[in-house]
Amino acid sequence: MTNFAVIGPGAVGSVIALELLKAGLDVKLFGRQEQQVVVKQTKLNVTSLVVNQQKFDYIFIAIKVTKNHEITEALRKMTHHHTIIIVCQNGMGQLTDFNMAAAFQAAVYISGQKKGDVVTHFRDQTLILPDYPAMHDLKKHLSQSTIEIVISEGQRTILWYKMLVNLGINTVTALSKNTTAIMELENIQQLVRNLLHEGVQIANADGENFSEATIDEIMEIYKGYPADMGTSMYYDALNDRKLEYDFIQGQFHQIARENHIDTPVLDICCTLLTAYQYKK
Amino acid sequence: MTNFAVIGPGAVGSVIALELLKAGLDVKLFGRQEQQVVVKQTKLNVTSLVVNQQKFDYIFIAIKVTKNHEITEALRKMTHHHTIIIVCQNGMGQLTDFNMAAAFQAAVYISGQKKGDVVTHFRDQTLILPDYPAMHDLKKHLSQSTIEIVISEGQRTILWYKMLVNLGINTVTALSKNTTAIMELENIQQLVRNLLHEGVQIANADGENFSEATIDEIMEIYKGYPADMGTSMYYDALNDRKLEYDFIQGQFHQIARENHIDTPVLDICCTLLTAYQYKK
Repeated sequence: MTNFAVIGPGAVGSVIALELLKAGLDVKLFGRQEQQVVVKQTKLNVTSLVVNQQKFDYIFIAIKVTKNHEITEALRKMTHHHTIIIVCQNGMGQLTDFNMAAAFQAAVYISGQKKGDVVTHFRDQTLILPDYPAMHDLKKHLSQSTIEIVISEGQRTILWYKMLVNLGINTVTALSKNTTAIMELENIQQLVRNLLHEGVQIANADGENFSEATIDEIMEIYKGYPADMGTSMYYDALNDRKLEYDFIQGQFHQIARENHIDTPVLDICCTLLTAYQYKK
Repeated sequence: MTNFAVIGPGAVGSVIALELLKAGLDVKLFGRQEQQVVVKQTKLNVTSLVVNQQKFDYIFIAIKVTKNHEITEALRKMTHHHTIIIVCQNGMGQLTDFNMAAAFQAAVYISGQKKGDVVTHFRDQTLILPDYPAMHDLKKHLSQSTIEIVISEGQRTILWYKMLVNLGINTVTALSKNTTAIMELENIQQLVRNLLHEGVQIANADGENFSEATIDEIMEIYKGYPADMGTSMYYDALNDRKLEYDFIQGQFHQIARENHIDTPVLDICCTLLTAYQYKK
């Protein structure tokens, strides 16, 4: 029987593991240590990743991208020649962290939060995957589960769009150490627009076809955020944790350099975000 | 007998009060509440500002510039027609906060720190004052004290120089939430240089005559800082306190706008620093 592993007992990983289990699939949820999480009023067992000896056909990665290097050895032990890895993380460009197997990046729409051992699921449980045979196989395997699998030829565009959404709001909330309330400030709106303008140029140099209308659309998304909302980078900055910088702003920055795109605003933000992480 | 008040029992205020006392002058140190501070192994009494009924000939202001509005009423009660106020704070442009008397900005070189009730004095006890008759009178009064009073025609240039030093290092340490160690990063050095370049243009529009050599000189000063040193704005950002933004970066920004100087780097930094303070 095809078996599944989910690594990372946060909101995304716990919801995926629960729904696969409810669909009668052979699935194990892994974390740093043996514990239990509660998701949708159901207790789920979390198995310690370091003691695992089993191999898996499909592995969902739902840890923070900044922690990828910590699971390399454990992942190597749990993959075989035909293992498929689905990366359910923010960012792009981290597939090279998973070169022990065939790895695919998902665009994840599962919104929830974890407090203590309790996961609250807010809305959505959709994974958008690229159009490859392996992904169609996965979709068949998950057909009985409530996780919606969408396979899209335009999946890369969806990933880039998510990157742009993250670029604008995560940058200014992390650097100002303030919530999305700051989007009420005209100067911040203009700064975010300038950042997105540079981001669109960068994505387009990578083959996308975004326009000024994309920026207007993303600014509208931000307007829908509650004022006291924090972003993942805001919470990381507030708690002095490592930021997902390398996989969001850092990724934009790298592609800008490769393509000789002038990005004065992104440059300053990247300089300050790099300084935030320096020797911490 | 001429009497003196010092408001603010921090490092600067406590050292001034102690040295005036030791010189046999009639001086009172004021703070938020009755307490004692220890400075140079001597206990000093701090009088509560709100209960004071006395008037003073000279008043030294040594509180944080962000707290000026809190002492307005108390100050009004302690001034008479000939009171002279000496502002011993970071920044420029806050003299308008002290319109109840003749007020002069000092460039303060007193380095120390306060932990609990104990002030440690590191080095220097010099006040550089502008060349006005009232300042010469003050110098005579203080001739027996070890506080060195320097009266300089170029005092405004000294204030601007201090502003430039603060502009570079305070901005990047506050926004990156990191110590002066970040000055080891080439990108940060370049960002600071760009900021100082804009700062020099602004100061020069205000009548100064700084050059690229000034920037090199300030970069050398930064090199002399120990790597784990925090700046005042860094500590404020770390502890989620209000920043002295209005009186440093905000001051530069205002003069830039008045003189139509293009300051793209300062603009971004000011936008982020304003956002930091938004609705906090």
